[in-house]
Amino acid sequence: MSFATNDSATKHSAGVAITAEEISSGEQKASDEVARYAVYLGDDSLMLGQRLSWWISRAPELEEDIALGNIALDLVGHARFLLSYAGTAWGKGEDDLAYFRDEEEFRSVRLVEAENGDFAKTIARQLYFSFYAYELYSRLKESTDATLAAIADKALKEVLYHQDHAAEWLNRLGLGTEESARRMQRGLDELWPYVPELFHDDDLTRSLAEEGVAVLPSSLEEPTMSRLTSAITAAGLQVPATGTARGGDRSGEMSEHRGYILAEMQSLARRHPGATW
Amino acid sequence: MSFATNDSATKHSAGVAITAEEISSGEQKASDEVARYAVYLGDDSLMLGQRLSWWISRAPELEEDIALGNIALDLVGHARFLLSYAGTAWGKGEDDLAYFRDEEEFRSVRLVEAENGDFAKTIARQLYFSFYAYELYSRLKESTDATLAAIADKALKEVLYHQDHAAEWLNRLGLGTEESARRMQRGLDELWPYVPELFHDDDLTRSLAEEGVAVLPSSLEEPTMSRLTSAITAAGLQVPATGTARGGDRSGEMSEHRGYILAEMQSLARRHPGATW
Repeated sequence: MSFATNDSATKHSAGVAITAEEISSGEQKASDEVARYAVYLGDDSLMLGQRLSWWISRAPELEEDIALGNIALDLVGHARFLLSYAGTAWGKGEDDLAYFRDEEEFRSVRLVEAENGDFAKTIARQLYFSFYAYELYSRLKESTDATLAAIADKALKEVLYHQDHAAEWLNRLGLGTEESARRMQRGLDELWPYVPELFHDDDLTRSLAEEGVAVLPSSLEEPTMSRLTSAITAAGLQVPATGTARGGDRSGEMSEHRGYILAEMQSLARRHPGATW
Repeated sequence: MSFATNDSATKHSAGVAITAEEISSGEQKASDEVARYAVYLGDDSLMLGQRLSWWISRAPELEEDIALGNIALDLVGHARFLLSYAGTAWGKGEDDLAYFRDEEEFRSVRLVEAENGDFAKTIARQLYFSFYAYELYSRLKESTDATLAAIADKALKEVLYHQDHAAEWLNRLGLGTEESARRMQRGLDELWPYVPELFHDDDLTRSLAEEGVAVLPSSLEEPTMSRLTSAITAAGLQVPATGTARGGDRSGEMSEHRGYILAEMQSLARRHPGATW
């Protein structure tokens, strides 16, 4: 949960603020473009963190309650960094962006908004997202934007664990009983159509990638898919052939679930703005 | 979340197992009496952890999402230790005890089962429980039972943080706006009648306390209440005068909410016993 204090500092992250509060009040303000990109990444983490936290009182093992809970809190932590940084462009805080944006202003991909389903489907979602996030943050820590680089460097350490956790369960279920393999395969198949959305380029990411600020989403496709394919095959399962879902521009226009997640997440903060009553 | 590795070892905890798995498979088996006591304490932590985890996607601030989430996971961690140890007496695992006991077999107090209510009520519950838990574990780490002592020693470090967290919010709300003070007072008043249950002695605790294994619950009343009284007064609030609720023998007979919490927590594990499908 908490970041180790003696991390090896990269050339970008040395001395850079590592708490959301420090990012918020720090010297480096995001440009409007950088902020919009930070929102892409932050919203993905926030939505997945919310979805995952549902499991805390419901996982099939107490140990797993805690593991999924830790991962959920890590993801909310990443969202805090990214949304705090985005907020510096617009004079807003992380909570403004999390609680007071409307559905159509969120920029998360549908994969992270997908329903939890059974435990296997949740693991499939974790597998896809964490393999992608690993490739993303591995490259983003070399960003020319020092704050994004520092955030990526920190997040990467946790995402490594998320990846191991998902891959371990993939194997355990894929190589377990006939029923566990059937459910794992079903989870993989159901979410596969939403994976390509992670690799969708648009004008914003293309422009920022040219400046060395963002990672071009499409550049992550080959490494992510190649490792996913190996992991799925090694677990005795089939690489899905379930096609690609239509839509996929982070607009939320095709999203079935975003409104529901936000209703749950935002209702309290909106009822009591400022949270001090 | 994770225990520091260089904790100063007490005479009891030096070299004693500190993971739930190690406790489960360790040399020291609990007697039936000790196991029943461990269930008292473990169920309190488990129920409160479950209740608290609800806040993870709903707290008034992202930062608070994470703080309450961490506390919830700490409590589930304490429950894992205690139920793992209890299980050694009966050849059962932590998950058997968490997921496959029926409502009337749980031994939690009603305070931890209380509804979350608004944020202030949740903080009141945290305040009462963490102040009690601090006194409990401070003494239990001197238990003649080495495993209980080691568990207490570890839990104490986290409970210290829980106590600070609750006391900070007590002050922030009590000394905040008129409305925040009103709500904080209401939370304190509503839960006050359930506090005495924490200090209720029975044959089991009396017998184990005589052997130096357990802490006699009634011995915790004076130190807990005296510190609570100071904290409440310092926050500009009134020490409640709302009496004592009837019942209070950990039997769950008077419990309104236990069944609901268990339905949520146990349904998945019971649908898929063994969790490997």
